Amino acid sequence: MEKIVRISLSDLSVKVEPVPPEWAWYGGRAVTSTIVAKEVPPNCHPLGPSNKLVFAPGLLAGTMASDTGRLSAGAKSPLTGGIKESSAGGLSAQMLARLQIKALIVEGLPKEDKWYRIHINKDGASIHEETELIGLGNYALQKVLEERLGKKFGALSIGQAGEFRMAAADISARDSSGTLRSHGRGGLGAVMGSKRVKVITLDDTGAAGVQVADPEKFKGAAKGWSQALLAHPGLSQGMRLFGTAQLVNAIHALGGLPTHNFRYGQYEQHEAISGETMRETIIARGGKPTHSCQPGCVIQCSQVYLDKDGNFVTSGIEYETIALLGANCKLGNLDAVAIADRLMDDIGVDSIDTSCAMGVAMEAGLLPFGDTEGVVRLLQEEIAKGTPLGRILGGGAALTGKAYGITRVPVAKNQAFPAYDPRAIKGIGVTYATSPMGADHTAGYTVGATLGGHVNGLKKEGQLGLSKGTQIATGAVDSLGLCQFSDMALADIPDAKTRMVELINARVGGNRTGEECFDGLGMYVLQTERQFNLKAGLTSEHDRLPEFMTTDPLPPHNEVFDFTNEELDSVWNS
Amino acid sequence: MEKIVRISLSDLSVKVEPVPPEWAWYGGRAVTSTIVAKEVPPNCHPLGPSNKLVFAPGLLAGTMASDTGRLSAGAKSPLTGGIKESSAGGLSAQMLARLQIKALIVEGLPKEDKWYRIHINKDGASIHEETELIGLGNYALQKVLEERLGKKFGALSIGQAGEFRMAAADISARDSSGTLRSHGRGGLGAVMGSKRVKVITLDDTGAAGVQVADPEKFKGAAKGWSQALLAHPGLSQGMRLFGTAQLVNAIHALGGLPTHNFRYGQYEQHEAISGETMRETIIARGGKPTHSCQPGCVIQCSQVYLDKDGNFVTSGIEYETIALLGANCKLGNLDAVAIADRLMDDIGVDSIDTSCAMGVAMEAGLLPFGDTEGVVRLLQEEIAKGTPLGRILGGGAALTGKAYGITRVPVAKNQAFPAYDPRAIKGIGVTYATSPMGADHTAGYTVGATLGGHVNGLKKEGQLGLSKGTQIATGAVDSLGLCQFSDMALADIPDAKTRMVELINARVGGNRTGEECFDGLGMYVLQTERQFNLKAGLTSEHDRLPEFMTTDPLPPHNEVFDFTNEELDSVWNS
Repeated sequence: MEKIVRISLSDLSVKVEPVPPEWAWYGGRAVTSTIVAKEVPPNCHPLGPSNKLVFAPGLLAGTMASDTGRLSAGAKSPLTGGIKESSAGGLSAQMLARLQIKALIVEGLPKEDKWYRIHINKDGASIHEETELIGLGNYALQKVLEERLGKKFGALSIGQAGEFRMAAADISARDSSGTLRSHGRGGLGAVMGSKRVKVITLDDTGAAGVQVADPEKFKGAAKGWSQALLAHPGLSQGMRLFGTAQLVNAIHALGGLPTHNFRYGQYEQHEAISGETMRETIIARGGKPTHSCQPGCVIQCSQVYLDKDGNFVTSGIEYETIALLGANCKLGNLDAVAIADRLMDDIGVDSIDTSCAMGVAMEAGLLPFGDTEGVVRLLQEEIAKGTPLGRILGGGAALTGKAYGITRVPVAKNQAFPAYDPRAIKGIGVTYATSPMGADHTAGYTVGATLGGHVNGLKKEGQLGLSKGTQIATGAVDSLGLCQFSDMALADIPDAKTRMVELINARVGGNRTGEECFDGLGMYVLQTERQFNLKAGLTSEHDRLPEFMTTDPLPPHNEVFDFTNEELDSVWNS
Repeated sequence: MEKIVRISLSDLSVKVEPVPPEWAWYGGRAVTSTIVAKEVPPNCHPLGPSNKLVFAPGLLAGTMASDTGRLSAGAKSPLTGGIKESSAGGLSAQMLARLQIKALIVEGLPKEDKWYRIHINKDGASIHEETELIGLGNYALQKVLEERLGKKFGALSIGQAGEFRMAAADISARDSSGTLRSHGRGGLGAVMGSKRVKVITLDDTGAAGVQVADPEKFKGAAKGWSQALLAHPGLSQGMRLFGTAQLVNAIHALGGLPTHNFRYGQYEQHEAISGETMRETIIARGGKPTHSCQPGCVIQCSQVYLDKDGNFVTSGIEYETIALLGANCKLGNLDAVAIADRLMDDIGVDSIDTSCAMGVAMEAGLLPFGDTEGVVRLLQEEIAKGTPLGRILGGGAALTGKAYGITRVPVAKNQAFPAYDPRAIKGIGVTYATSPMGADHTAGYTVGATLGGHVNGLKKEGQLGLSKGTQIATGAVDSLGLCQFSDMALADIPDAKTRMVELINARVGGNRTGEECFDGLGMYVLQTERQFNLKAGLTSEHDRLPEFMTTDPLPPHNEVFDFTNEELDSVWNS
């Protein structure tokens, strides 16, 4: 039987609760957002006793279906002040699902000034006092845990940033190589730190496994689903060969590659940080150009990046980080980006918000654009140590902008922009503005349709509907445990959606239509989140981009983000 | 003829415009809020080119009527994100009024990286490039200006905090003794700094004077008004003898004196920081126990505080500062408070927000409670120098709380609480929550009625209506140029309101009723401000106090702030 595990830090108790029957079709984001909306007072302090940190595996996680093993983490965000869901790969979703845990709720605040580890296995959850682990970065933490637990375990952990309750602190998720994925956005690591939980460890040895209503039907559909994924050249070739870094040259070509703190849309040294260059570099050094963030993935868009001497630096070096450090901060080379990426993972800060914060810090004159040593120093000596400057930068781009009185601050709902400038890729700007998540490319990724020529990024035509549609689809994708890139197959490969609907019905036992499985679920998620946000004080007036986006033309196309407030409001009002 | 002077930093131009006839009855806050609401896009960046800084003398400023010389400053606030009005005494309102300037609008941003001084005299306004003045604190600035202009001039200036565009930066107003008053709240100094205006100097030599429609009637009413003020024992005795510091013992007795970062409502060493002790200390040292912040004041609640050696330290050492540093940060003696007060005036930071930020910094462990040397060091070495920690503290209590992940942060709409705990003086909590200004005791001062026994501060009964009524009255008081304390006469002395209505009608020329002059004007002001705030994203969900106010009982009465959201919303919805 699936269950909910509720852990209270207030009295160090563990409770196991039944799953409400109406949640049968929910997983991931649908579960976290339902629980947060139901149980967390929208006006509470995000770091106070009333906030709850909820983890939920996607509906299909732990099954044999490929690319369905994402884990959702949810809470009221210390960064946006609204509801937050942030998903990651790694092992934990599959382990939770096999342990038949539909949701893990972490609530309350400890009465004593102690830190804790939560351990979850087939016998249930237990809470252990920890002192040895405090102050460790995420990589050092993995080492200590490996000494205790061997190699095969799941872990959701915070680095120093989460301990310091910084608003850009994230939650790291251990993957099958022992490297790190991130629940990056919205400061969920600060919520975990406020509850003084350093790490949640998982062991699914002896787990009962996922209950699948119709295993035979599921098996056939899973095979078809994998074939559909592999049939998409963008996945089996582009993503697999170059990872998300393939976007560097593509977004440069669109004129939407953030450069010099969102001042330009193209970066002349883009080739030096491109996916093609990254692949060549990795191969030449004996790293892994393909790598999966979760067991069973057929896309394998991750990679293992080594330094010149062949030593491991980082895994899963994403386009966002490459572009926001490489072009936007003008670091201009992949080794610099990789070192900073590793540090951000280790300290446990969101690489998008922190990279944008570095751009704002450069704008403020704290260090020059292009100063790699400066970025490394700020990460190691300031953020990791919780100095005043570290507190500012670890608070994200918005806090950095406020502290230094900067107006060119790329944030929506206080959350930093991913690496697509909304003046050249207007649909993504609609998503940044209108998503209940704040600026988040994964909340409604219109970039694929722009690259595919379905819309012109420089024009408003079609962008509002495109953003809305992708936001709704993403609400479903995030609930099913699918990786974002499955969107590409779902959109382009005729068989993909059919197979996915078969998988869902075979998993739960029923006959839901594609409409119900996608649009119905996605709209439910978004409405739940928007209602929470309204009560938390985030209204349509927060569905806006910063003023400079609407006034400062972006070279080379010299467009501004020119949607009216009424047009933006029409996304959810129509 | 009254006029509007519009100064654009974008093209360094000065324009003189006529006053719309419908503004004849407006002054002060009614003028600043009207102009900000009309001309500033609610969603603009408060430090960007679209924000405007507006100064307007009260309707009666510059006349012979006592205690009517307040100046309103208004803009979109970098602290609250909403509309802001902050008033101060000093010379400038009277000078502007005598120069027949109904409003001074400072707009745009300079194209070049230069700083400016605006000078206003009978020949108009002029813009002068300044380099010598940059980096000076407000006291040193006065010295340099005195060398240039003599002793008799008005000045509105920013210290280092305003230059740094800190969200708690204020605007200093020179008074007739050459000491400083403050437009303290809401970060208006940052707006002035963003426009790179270091100081506005004023000289009313040869000014035409205020146009009074019926001078004879005005003269009679002015005499009656002064008598009404002096007839109030709270003004002619309490305020005059002890200044606002008379409140220390009174608020301690109510159990609402913020102590140890709003953890307790009483402070055992309250006698050491009381108004009585202050008066004795000042007299013993040869300072001035009474002093007027504006020429012609009959109350004279200000004072001149000297150190043990008889040297000037500060002027106008207010209850808020005494309580928030003395009790809430537990500095525990008046010399410590006076030194910090002088530094805050000099650097140009709001003493309420900065003192609360110190309390939050103590909560965060940055320095111990009671550490006077620490507070002085943070002011001199951090805030005044714009270090990272100075940027945090100069951003106010809210930013300090965010940077350090603290939940016990006494702010409403991001603005720090004055020195009345809303759990023991519940009406003031309603004002903090529901005022369009954010937490602001001067926006609707229910404390007088509580001390007078008209309401019980520990009970909810009568508080919602009391707050609403005082907020509306304050909207009028702030527009007329009246000092807050005239409220006491208006409430308690039967002749006061009659005389004030006579003054208003004699000034403008008309026959408005008391209802029109007070309730009508006050409601107009509040509605104008609330409509701006709604468009800026501040809804009823922002009319709330922080969670700890509703959950943590305040000793000794162990009350919480227990108004429901619906009750708070009823203030403006009913």
